[in-house]
Amino acid sequence: MAMGGGGGGKEGGGGGMAAQAGRLGVAASVAINLAGIALYLRRRYFGDGGKGEEELAVAPSSGKPPVTKDSVINLDHGDPTMYGAFWRGGAGERATIVIPGWQTMSYFSDVGSLCWFLEPGFERQVRRLHRLVGNAVADGYHVLVGNGSTQLFQAALYALSPPGAAAPTSVVSPAPYYSSYPAVTDYLKSALYRWAGDANMFDADGENYIELVCSPNNPDGGIREPVLKSGAGVAVHDLAYYWPQYTPITEAAAHDIMLFTVSKCTGHAGTRLGWALVKDRAVAQRMSKFIELNTIGVSKDSQLRAAKILKTISDGYDRAPAPAATAGDDSGRLFHFARRQMVARWGALRAAVAASGIFTLPDEVPGNCTFTKETVAAYPPFAWLRCEKEGVNDLEGYLRERKILTRGGGKFGADGRVVRISMLDTDEAFAIFIDRLAAMK
Amino acid sequence: MAMGGGGGGKEGGGGGMAAQAGRLGVAASVAINLAGIALYLRRRYFGDGGKGEEELAVAPSSGKPPVTKDSVINLDHGDPTMYGAFWRGGAGERATIVIPGWQTMSYFSDVGSLCWFLEPGFERQVRRLHRLVGNAVADGYHVLVGNGSTQLFQAALYALSPPGAAAPTSVVSPAPYYSSYPAVTDYLKSALYRWAGDANMFDADGENYIELVCSPNNPDGGIREPVLKSGAGVAVHDLAYYWPQYTPITEAAAHDIMLFTVSKCTGHAGTRLGWALVKDRAVAQRMSKFIELNTIGVSKDSQLRAAKILKTISDGYDRAPAPAATAGDDSGRLFHFARRQMVARWGALRAAVAASGIFTLPDEVPGNCTFTKETVAAYPPFAWLRCEKEGVNDLEGYLRERKILTRGGGKFGADGRVVRISMLDTDEAFAIFIDRLAAMK
Repeated sequence: MAMGGGGGGKEGGGGGMAAQAGRLGVAASVAINLAGIALYLRRRYFGDGGKGEEELAVAPSSGKPPVTKDSVINLDHGDPTMYGAFWRGGAGERATIVIPGWQTMSYFSDVGSLCWFLEPGFERQVRRLHRLVGNAVADGYHVLVGNGSTQLFQAALYALSPPGAAAPTSVVSPAPYYSSYPAVTDYLKSALYRWAGDANMFDADGENYIELVCSPNNPDGGIREPVLKSGAGVAVHDLAYYWPQYTPITEAAAHDIMLFTVSKCTGHAGTRLGWALVKDRAVAQRMSKFIELNTIGVSKDSQLRAAKILKTISDGYDRAPAPAATAGDDSGRLFHFARRQMVARWGALRAAVAASGIFTLPDEVPGNCTFTKETVAAYPPFAWLRCEKEGVNDLEGYLRERKILTRGGGKFGADGRVVRISMLDTDEAFAIFIDRLAAMK
Repeated sequence: MAMGGGGGGKEGGGGGMAAQAGRLGVAASVAINLAGIALYLRRRYFGDGGKGEEELAVAPSSGKPPVTKDSVINLDHGDPTMYGAFWRGGAGERATIVIPGWQTMSYFSDVGSLCWFLEPGFERQVRRLHRLVGNAVADGYHVLVGNGSTQLFQAALYALSPPGAAAPTSVVSPAPYYSSYPAVTDYLKSALYRWAGDANMFDADGENYIELVCSPNNPDGGIREPVLKSGAGVAVHDLAYYWPQYTPITEAAAHDIMLFTVSKCTGHAGTRLGWALVKDRAVAQRMSKFIELNTIGVSKDSQLRAAKILKTISDGYDRAPAPAATAGDDSGRLFHFARRQMVARWGALRAAVAASGIFTLPDEVPGNCTFTKETVAAYPPFAWLRCEKEGVNDLEGYLRERKILTRGGGKFGADGRVVRISMLDTDEAFAIFIDRLAAMK
């Protein structure tokens, strides 16, 4: 799971930003050549010229107002808009898709498949990307698609809870745990499963349980293994952040259920697409059944789009293999681009923390990355920031007074002197945050 | 709600159809003019010429094998592939969308809105379409978007069930009711709500309840109002089929919660998009919260796509207003195209039933349609077919032996001598079905 959305929704916010209106405006018979196609497409579908609002074809949106020096800076959610700069470059043109009106009519993507709503092209690109990155074993696994990994997480709870059990299956994760886990587990008060809190405080004692293993961990970036070892339990591995920009890839993970999401890999949160690699066929079938009952499958448009995006990433590395790319131009290599951003942001954050003197951060833990063939540090997508200043027991409130929205430790099963901060927002928002943090004494 | 998917999934089926592979194959510097753009786009993104599978951009899929005279014909689901012929025409070109790589990065569509994941362009087209068709009042209503109306149905159950109630809220609908209602209500064994069966058998007795009012009704096409009148109950109106191709539009519906879906309006089931019109702000907020917890919003790609599709429909009528269009060319007027199909199919079905002599169908009920300004009959998306032949007590099984997959009455709270049959499948499948039905004596 991935938003870092907690039960939080859209706290903060502000007035909706008027979406840039794209308008049609092309004269009807000019001759153009292929070099002009990109520009043509942009004009044809996104703007320039104008026949009024009704001509709008596809307009970008985020609804977020532009930040200014005095803005409220919202780093509560892990909205991965940092990736925008990469996709506005040449890679973005290559990832463009065109969907004609007759496409995606049927509910079915592959009626003969266990996951009948999974687009074959998306599955192919998922498997290809895992082979490229080496972060998970996909061969021998069933691929499932979900409306974000949040839905796949619920599918796993459904699949792993025995339907006829006398009591709900306990769902646990060691604190600090992702703040959405409790809310998403319990909002429907299911008799199949229920949130049972910190795995370190849980006494399995022969009882059925599901342990959520988020690694690298949201919120603190820790590398994790299951803490519970009882035979009656099963683990679900949430690997949303196990990508080379965030952490050294040290092995190809091969757990029973592994969850991934497009949003934290490529930055396309609005596409709402996740996938699961599942070893056991019966579990995969039950997870697929959950998604069928919950939403009758998953948007094909998103799957076509995500397939093209993942393809563009893999193609970028086919053109310039990873080791050779470290020093050069990263415009076609997503993980290198994103890592460079994360290195710069973490450098700025550690400098601001040092300048301030009242905060601490988790230590940097280096490792040897099999993907980049380098020893690199981890650069988690969230900063788990602790305040050491006397009297600050509600750090979320302390920062909110300074117009920085974060998520307090209490929501993660931790104390109030710590907060989680998204490292994936826009350059502009991040820069203002850093300036403010450095000035706090 | 709309699939007619029941708890059914992908019964029947058969081997996946190899998706038509689209391939890149354009020489690099030909001069082309605008008249060639449509062809160019098709070639560039969908096919013709070939650099192998990795160049595949967007390929259509349904996974359904082509039907033959001896095929199993699957009319169990309401897969609306009938609409393909409309969208493969000129309207399909006009509904084409292009999504560049930098689009839909953020989780947010309009951070200041109650439904923060609702694309403003989609909302605008929804309101415009209701104004055009006159089937529902949208002014003064909150618009919510969901992953199909199935998700919005669950959002309504969540929003309408008091969180602290001693017992789950009873969910009822008069038989025959849509077969998915019980399964989708109960699969998570929620303590908030539970399926309580046929509304006609339900004794409200001051108890909280939710009545699902599907009109026109799935499976039998009946026009419905709530049957329960107790003050402790609330109604959810499932208006998936309240469109001019299926039934005369007799009034602009103005109920508290109204559910719609793209799939049964336009045929784009694979886009997985529904919307709700909700009068009460607090209910709308709770429904939005459900979707946030369940899937952190809804695919923006689907919303951009659906906005373009709905726009194309409304534009088609702006060009040639409805009353004038009845006699002419329907290639730009979706509802007229689809009604023509439904008239033809129901004509063929009634002829086949008459030829066979062992079946009956509900009566045709004509009404004055405010949209087409004509008196027209209802042509429901499903046929509710009853067998009068002695000894046939399991009509679903009887038809299955004859290689026609339907859904038996038992799943709708009715008896086994009746089945539901999708009227929205491909022309080829429908024609074979009609031939077989007429031959049954």
